[in-house]
Amino acid sequence: MLRAVSDVHATAAAELAARYGAEVATTEAILTDPSIDAVLIATSTDTHSDLIEAATAAGKAVLCEKPVDLSLARAKTCLERTKDNGQPVMVGFNRRFDASFAAVKKALDAGEIGKAEQLAITSFDPGPPPVSYIKVSGGLFRDMMIHDFDMAQFIMGATPVRVFATGSALVDPEIGAAGDIDTAVVTLSYADGTMAVIRNSRRASYGYDQRLELLGSGGLLSVDNVRETQLVRATAEGITAGKPVHFFLERYMPAYAAEWAAFVEAIEAGTPMPVSLADGVAALAVAEAAARSRETGDPVDLES
Amino acid sequence: MLRAVSDVHATAAAELAARYGAEVATTEAILTDPSIDAVLIATSTDTHSDLIEAATAAGKAVLCEKPVDLSLARAKTCLERTKDNGQPVMVGFNRRFDASFAAVKKALDAGEIGKAEQLAITSFDPGPPPVSYIKVSGGLFRDMMIHDFDMAQFIMGATPVRVFATGSALVDPEIGAAGDIDTAVVTLSYADGTMAVIRNSRRASYGYDQRLELLGSGGLLSVDNVRETQLVRATAEGITAGKPVHFFLERYMPAYAAEWAAFVEAIEAGTPMPVSLADGVAALAVAEAAARSRETGDPVDLES
Amino acid sequence: MLRAVSDVHATAAAELAARYGAEVATTEAILTDPSIDAVLIATSTDTHSDLIEAATAAGKAVLCEKPVDLSLARAKTCLERTKDNGQPVMVGFNRRFDASFAAVKKALDAGEIGKAEQLAITSFDPGPPPVSYIKVSGGLFRDMMIHDFDMAQFIMGATPVRVFATGSALVDPEIGAAGDIDTAVVTLSYADGTMAVIRNSRRASYGYDQRLELLGSGGLLSVDNVRETQLVRATAEGITAGKPVHFFLERYMPAYAAEWAAFVEAIEAGTPMPVSLADGVAALAVAEAAARSRETGDPVDLES
Amino acid sequence: MLRAVSDVHATAAAELAARYGAEVATTEAILTDPSIDAVLIATSTDTHSDLIEAATAAGKAVLCEKPVDLSLARAKTCLERTKDNGQPVMVGFNRRFDASFAAVKKALDAGEIGKAEQLAITSFDPGPPPVSYIKVSGGLFRDMMIHDFDMAQFIMGATPVRVFATGSALVDPEIGAAGDIDTAVVTLSYADGTMAVIRNSRRASYGYDQRLELLGSGGLLSVDNVRETQLVRATAEGITAGKPVHFFLERYMPAYAAEWAAFVEAIEAGTPMPVSLADGVAALAVAEAAARSRETGDPVDLES
Repeated sequence: MLRAVSDVHATAAAELAARYGAEVATTEAILTDPSIDAVLIATSTDTHSDLIEAATAAGKAVLCEKPVDLSLARAKTCLERTKDNGQPVMVGFNRRFDASFAAVKKALDAGEIGKAEQLAITSFDPGPPPVSYIKVSGGLFRDMMIHDFDMAQFIMGATPVRVFATGSALVDPEIGAAGDIDTAVVTLSYADGTMAVIRNSRRASYGYDQRLELLGSGGLLSVDNVRETQLVRATAEGITAGKPVHFFLERYMPAYAAEWAAFVEAIEAGTPMPVSLADGVAALAVAEAAARSRETGDPVDLES
Repeated sequence: MLRAVSDVHATAAAELAARYGAEVATTEAILTDPSIDAVLIATSTDTHSDLIEAATAAGKAVLCEKPVDLSLARAKTCLERTKDNGQPVMVGFNRRFDASFAAVKKALDAGEIGKAEQLAITSFDPGPPPVSYIKVSGGLFRDMMIHDFDMAQFIMGATPVRVFATGSALVDPEIGAAGDIDTAVVTLSYADGTMAVIRNSRRASYGYDQRLELLGSGGLLSVDNVRETQLVRATAEGITAGKPVHFFLERYMPAYAAEWAAFVEAIEAGTPMPVSLADGVAALAVAEAAARSRETGDPVDLES
Repeated sequence: MLRAVSDVHATAAAELAARYGAEVATTEAILTDPSIDAVLIATSTDTHSDLIEAATAAGKAVLCEKPVDLSLARAKTCLERTKDNGQPVMVGFNRRFDASFAAVKKALDAGEIGKAEQLAITSFDPGPPPVSYIKVSGGLFRDMMIHDFDMAQFIMGATPVRVFATGSALVDPEIGAAGDIDTAVVTLSYADGTMAVIRNSRRASYGYDQRLELLGSGGLLSVDNVRETQLVRATAEGITAGKPVHFFLERYMPAYAAEWAAFVEAIEAGTPMPVSLADGVAALAVAEAAARSRETGDPVDLES
Repeated sequence: MLRAVSDVHATAAAELAARYGAEVATTEAILTDPSIDAVLIATSTDTHSDLIEAATAAGKAVLCEKPVDLSLARAKTCLERTKDNGQPVMVGFNRRFDASFAAVKKALDAGEIGKAEQLAITSFDPGPPPVSYIKVSGGLFRDMMIHDFDMAQFIMGATPVRVFATGSALVDPEIGAAGDIDTAVVTLSYADGTMAVIRNSRRASYGYDQRLELLGSGGLLSVDNVRETQLVRATAEGITAGKPVHFFLERYMPAYAAEWAAFVEAIEAGTPMPVSLADGVAALAVAEAAARSRETGDPVDLES
C-alpha cells in the first residue's frame, strides 16, 4: 500500500497521492514514519546516493531508479556506507523483469542452449531526447547503455574484464557539440573468453527496438520486439506488420509491475534483492570504462 | 465506480465487493437503487433475457454477457420488449475490442484493402470443457462459435443470407454422446456474393488459437496469435517460438477492459452502444441456423 | 534424356528440341519409336484422355498434366481403358512435390500431430487470367481448385463423401458473365467425420498465396508462403517484408523438377506412380461435385 | 561454355569435364589456348596470386576464389603487377550476389533508409571444420570472416579506418591449440563516424546462420535466414519452424550462379568487374588488421 508521496513538484505529488489514497509528505517525515517499511527513490540521479544512505539508515528497504549515480566513486561510497546497515537496496533495472528477457535467463540456466558463448544486445530508442536532457544525462553509456550493461551482467552472470567502445554523433550534431554520442557499439570481453556486444542508437525511425540474442554451445536464444498489434497488411506494396510498441513505458510496463512485485516479495520473504546495489555499481563501472574507451580509442580493463 | 454486487454465491459476491469497495446487495435492491446507472449481467445464460428486461425497465443501462439467450425466440422477444424503453443494452462480444481485430475493421473501413471479399476466422480452444458444461452450453454454435458469428458481423458489416455447417465430435466421444460436436467448419454467404468461413475446434494442443484474415479487392489483412513471450529457441531440433497465450482470459484481458470502457463511454456520451442487443440476437440467429444446417446436412437460409 | 518433341506450334517444338538436343517429331512417330520409354503429355486438356490411351497402348509410361479431362465420364473411361495395359500413368499434380507440402504429409504420417482432423487450404492467384481462357478452362473448380482437391486427397488420404461449395464472381464481372466464378469456399466432409475447407480467389493483389494448415489431435502443421527475398524494411511506415514469389512457375519450379524426378524414379524402380490416374479422376470427381453444389446451392454426395 | 578443366585430382577433372562436354587440359595449355577468354581459379589459396598473374599476362579474364592470398603483401604485389595488363579480375565474394543481401544494397542506394549508420553482420557456421583445415586456413579472420569484411565493404561502400577484434576458442580447444579462434566479434569504424560489427562463430547447432542488418537515418534493413521448408509445427511443446538451410552450398547456390553470370556479363559488356581484385586486397587488409588486433588486444588503424 502506498502511504506517502514526496515530490518537489507539489501538484504531481498531490495527484499521485490522491490516486492511490496516500498522503503528501516531506522526505523527512517519510523516513521517520515507523509505519513505512520501504521507499521508492525516483528522483534526479544526483540525489540517489544521499537518499539511499538516508533511507537505509532510517531502516527502510529501498528500490532506487537507475543509475545509482553519475559518479562511480560516489556510488561505491554509497555501497560501502550502506552495506552494513542491514537494509535491502534494489536498483531499478526493470528490463530484467521483462517476460522475454527473463525467459532467456531461465532457459540458459535450465541448460537449454548449453554454455553461453556470445551475447548480442540491440537497444535503439525511437528518437533522441532534447539536447538539454543529454547535457545532464551523464552521456549515452551512463544514461542509456547502462540498461544493457546490466542486462549483460544479468544474462552472462559476470562482470567483463575488458571493454571497447566506438561511438559517434550521427543522429544530431548538437549531441556531438554537447560532448556526447548517439550511436555506439561496445564489446565486452569476459575472463572465460566469452563475449558480448551491445549496439545503441538514439534513433530508430521504426520505433523502440529492444532485442537480444545469446549464442550458446547448444543453440541460440533470441528475443524480438513486441508489436503494437498482430495485424499484418498484405498489399501490392508488400507484407507490412505493425511497428514495435512505441517506447519504454509501452514495452516495459509489465516489467515495471513485475519489478515492484519482486521487490515487495523479496522484502516479505527476507530473500536477497533480485537486483542489488552492487549490481548497480557494477553496471556503472562498465559504463565508465566504456566512456573512457570511447574517449581514448583504446580498450579499458576493469579492475576485478 | 462499482456500487454493488449480487451473486448467488455469497462468498464470491463478498470478495468482489470488498476488492472494489462495493457492497453486496440483492438484484432487486440494485435495480431500485436510483444512484446506480448501469448494470453488468454475467449470470447463467437462461437468466439473461429476464434480467435485461427487468434492468432496462428499471431505467438501467445494461452490459450483458453473450449469448443473449439459448433460445432465439426468447432473445427476439427480449429485443422487442426492450426496444422502446430508451435504455441502452450492450452485448459482451469482447473480441470486437481486441486491438488487432479492431485494427482489421479500422483498416478495412479506411479502404486499405479495397472491398471485403472473403473472411476466414480460425478459433480453436486449447482443450474441451467438461461434458457437464457441454450439456448446458447450448452446443458449440451457440456457446463457442457465436463469438465468431459476431466477429463476422462486425467485420463484414452484414448478416449472412445462407449458412452451411459441417461438424463432428472428433476430440471427445462423450461430447458426441451428449449430442454436441467439437470440431466444425461453417460457411456464411452474404447477399452481395461475399463469403466467410469459420473454423472451430475444442482442442488445439498448442494453445488458444485466435486468428482472422480478410481478403479484399486490394489486399489481405491478417491477425496472428499473441505469444506468451517473444523468446525463440534455436537448437539442433529446430527454431521454436513460444506458444500463444493460454486462453481467453490471457488473450482478451485488454479487450475486456476496452469493452467496459467503451460501454461507459457510450453511456456518458449518449452514443449508440458499440455492440447492440440486435447484434446479439443476430449472432444467435446465425448460430441457430448453423446448428440446424449441421443436423439436416443442408444449408439454411436466414430470414432477412 | 529428352528424345523428341511434338507440338502444334512448330517454332516452340524446334526451340525446345534444340535446347535439349532432341528432335522434332510427330506424335505418331514418338509413339511408335521403340527407343522412347515414356512421354509427357502437356497438351490442351481435351486431348489428354485420347493421348493417354494411345500412349499407354503403345507401351509408353505417361506423365500427363492436370486435369485428366474436363469430362468426368471421359476421364473414367480413360481410367477403365488403360488400367489393364500395364503402363504406368502419373497425373501432374506438382504441388505434392513442393518441399513444404510434402513435409506436412511426412510429419503427419510420422505421427507428429496425431490424427488429422481439419485441413484448410488457401490458394489465391495473383490475378485472374483473360476471360478467353476462363471460357475454355472448365471453370474454377476443374481448372484451379482441382489442385487443392488433389492436395486434400494427398494429405487426408481419402476421398470426401460430401462437398459443399459457395462462390461468386467478385473479381471480374466478365468472369461471371462467362458463367464462372472467381472467389470460392468449398467444404469437404470425410466418412470418418474429419473435414477440409478450401479457399480460392483469382486475385490476391499481394501475390501468389499458397498456404495450408492441418489441425491434428496433437497439434497443427502449417505452411506459409515463400518470399522473394528475406529482406525486411523497417521504417516509420511499418515493418515490411517481401511479397510471396510471383506465381506458380516461381513457387513450384523445384516441385516440377521433383515431380519429374519422381516419375522417372518410379519407372526405373517399377514402383507405383506417386500420383495415379485414379487420383486424377478422383480430383475431377470432387471438382464436378463442387461445381454442381455451387449451381444448386446444395451439398453434393460423392459416390464411393 | 566450359572449354577445359585443369585439376591436380585427375578423376575430378575428368568427371567435371565430362559433365559439361569440356576437355581435361594442363594449366599451361589452357593459358595458351587463344579460344579461351576467361578462367576460373578455384585452387588452393597459396597458388592464387601466381595464377592470377599468369592468367592475366596470358590475356585471360579471371574469376578467382576468395581469399586472394593469405599474405597481404603478396596480394598487394599481385594487384600491382596485374593492374596495367588490361585484363579484368573478379574475386569470388559470392555473398554479394545473394538476392537478399543484394536487395539491401539496392534499397540503401535507393535511399529507402536514408544514410547508413550502423551495420551488423551475423555469420555462424553450423560446425567447425577439422583442425587440419584450420591449420592451413590462415585463421578465422582470413578464412571465414573475410566474407563479412567484404560484405561490409559492399554495403558501407568504404574501407574502415580502425578495427578492433576480440575472439576465443570456445568451440574446440584444439582450435585454440592450433593458434586460432572459433568465436569472434569485430568492430569496424569508418572515417565518417559510422560503424559495423561482425559476429562469427564456427558452431551454430541450429544450422548455418547468415543474417545482416543495417540501421540508417530513416529505418532498418534486415535479412533473416532462408529456411529448409516453410513447414511450422505447433504442438504442446511450442511452435517450431524449420532450420536454416544447411550450409553455404545450400544457402548460396543461387548466389554462385548469379556471381558467374555477373562475371560473364561484365566481360561481354566491357564493364568493370562487380568485385575487383582491389576489393579482394581490401578485405584481406581488414582481416590482417583484425588478426593483429586480436593478438595485441588493441585496435589497429588501417592505412588509407
